Amino acid sequence: MPLSALVLAGGSGTRFWPASRRSRPKQLLALDGGRSLLQATVDRLAPLVPAERVWVATTPALAAAVREQLPGLGPDRLVVEPAPRNTAPAIGFALARMPVEARRGAVAVLPSDHRVAEPEAFRATLAAAAEVAERDDRVLALGVVPTRAETGFGYLEVGEALPGAPGLREVVRFREKPDRATAERFLAGGRHLWNGGIFVFRGETMRAAIARLAPEVGAGLAALEGDPSSAARRFAALPAVSIDVAVMEKLEGFATLPLECGWDDLGSWQALHDALPGDGAGNRVHGSAVAVDARDNLLFAEQGTIAVVGVEGLVVVRTGDAVLVLPRERAQEVRRIVERLESNGRDDLL
Amino acid sequence: MPLSALVLAGGSGTRFWPASRRSRPKQLLALDGGRSLLQATVDRLAPLVPAERVWVATTPALAAAVREQLPGLGPDRLVVEPAPRNTAPAIGFALARMPVEARRGAVAVLPSDHRVAEPEAFRATLAAAAEVAERDDRVLALGVVPTRAETGFGYLEVGEALPGAPGLREVVRFREKPDRATAERFLAGGRHLWNGGIFVFRGETMRAAIARLAPEVGAGLAALEGDPSSAARRFAALPAVSIDVAVMEKLEGFATLPLECGWDDLGSWQALHDALPGDGAGNRVHGSAVAVDARDNLLFAEQGTIAVVGVEGLVVVRTGDAVLVLPRERAQEVRRIVERLESNGRDDLL
Repeated sequence: MPLSALVLAGGSGTRFWPASRRSRPKQLLALDGGRSLLQATVDRLAPLVPAERVWVATTPALAAAVREQLPGLGPDRLVVEPAPRNTAPAIGFALARMPVEARRGAVAVLPSDHRVAEPEAFRATLAAAAEVAERDDRVLALGVVPTRAETGFGYLEVGEALPGAPGLREVVRFREKPDRATAERFLAGGRHLWNGGIFVFRGETMRAAIARLAPEVGAGLAALEGDPSSAARRFAALPAVSIDVAVMEKLEGFATLPLECGWDDLGSWQALHDALPGDGAGNRVHGSAVAVDARDNLLFAEQGTIAVVGVEGLVVVRTGDAVLVLPRERAQEVRRIVERLESNGRDDLL
Repeated sequence: MPLSALVLAGGSGTRFWPASRRSRPKQLLALDGGRSLLQATVDRLAPLVPAERVWVATTPALAAAVREQLPGLGPDRLVVEPAPRNTAPAIGFALARMPVEARRGAVAVLPSDHRVAEPEAFRATLAAAAEVAERDDRVLALGVVPTRAETGFGYLEVGEALPGAPGLREVVRFREKPDRATAERFLAGGRHLWNGGIFVFRGETMRAAIARLAPEVGAGLAALEGDPSSAARRFAALPAVSIDVAVMEKLEGFATLPLECGWDDLGSWQALHDALPGDGAGNRVHGSAVAVDARDNLLFAEQGTIAVVGVEGLVVVRTGDAVLVLPRERAQEVRRIVERLESNGRDDLL
């Protein structure tokens, strides 16, 4: 049975302000080329998962924008979650909306806001995972092979090698974002992979797992399936819990395949800087920019032109209505601007 | 006879790019409040010089914009120089276009791109100069009393006190932009004033002085007066020479009155920074800006909002189509951006 894909596109966030807004979160941005991260997520599934086997879950606020970005997505394959309730409710709700035929087979759950430099390698690993999931009825994560001692990601700690596919290993436990020393140890030890939130399983298996391991979510979803008029109310009352915590951490036989495909979660302007190729002076440019005697800056012009002289290590972002300037190493602090705008009532910029 | 004013508004320049453009040079910008520097120049003349005694000289390229900014300026008081040929041709050409009645009296020539913090003090000095000019038929400069050892301005070296008005002194010579040590000496010695390009004289006296002291300019102007159809050609053939060099430096009896009125030539983004009041952290803000943990920046938003975190001593400028970021102490280097845009053929940004 062919693989189906469920792309999660309901996320929100402020780390790419001013490019990202409430109405246009990161996954809808073209951070890395001409296509948005969401579009690129769907693009790179083909030909392994053709468009007609892709479902996209999002929130009411983003549904119109998702539809506009993915004009080939049939209305029955756009799943609008009644409210943002994290990934366990979102996945359970979306699986129930997929045809029985699709969810009896393997389903890949994919975040919509990550970058993959090598789509072929990505598809090869995804195909291998789908084969294991369907044949052995196993739930898998793709585990990104670390390339640095990253403290910003969660990790999968792997155990025994498992039969069924080269590289397949048991996941012993999830590790939350580590401190620097622990991350160094993870990187050196070779027994930890980044949790990129990419999972593969038979859809019916996951529905059963949610019902068994996250009964509050499972019961709530069952109740709203039985009474569609109550969907909005019942969905909003579900616990906002991730699929990792609600299900994956509790699963027997949860496994992982190592993924090496130039993956990046693009978690900040700094991460985008690191992912883009530099000019001779190390400047990373998106859009129109002029740099004179300037080094190692990220110059991101969504509209108009950015000109810099004599600056180093800055993030400069220009959108239609705003400019952001901050040192690259303080990229996380963009949230302080967002907080200030919130307290100043500048909803027009949020 | 009442004082008339000739405002020179034909200048061009790149030091306020991206706010200033070929079609919108500095004098047309509202750098310091809601009115442009040109509008503020005319505003501050009243009530000493009412609007109907103000003439404005500019170039063909800027005439429409000047007309728009000064709707009260009658068409006979907008003097369009056929080409930009510096101040000696511009002043001679404009004086010939003023009614004989006006140019028989005192005329003040004023740059249109400077800032005056105290208009009343400015008018008082201008009125005193006009009285001397008319009564004694003397040519005067207003000499700005220095407040710092500025190396970016020309200076007037003063000599003997002259009778006729308190503070009136002979100008011994013009001094070009000095080096740092010389500027310090000028400031300490008390015998040097900044040359702000503000002159007062009887119009007919200046016409005669041009004819006598700058015969090439004088003869060219006389020829084109006699044959208006040749004006564009003959004017363009005049030497592009300043009134300082062509006339003032050679004049017998040239004098100055000291001017203390919070004058600034606003010669760069750095100078604008120094002229604007700072917030608690020393940031100077024009338009909409949000500064978090940021100090001593100039944040100039002509449109939209500028947000900065953790930066110090930067100039950040946002216009409808461009952003400039550079360290304040390198503000002069904005010309390097302009040069780059020129060589890249980006006329849309020039």
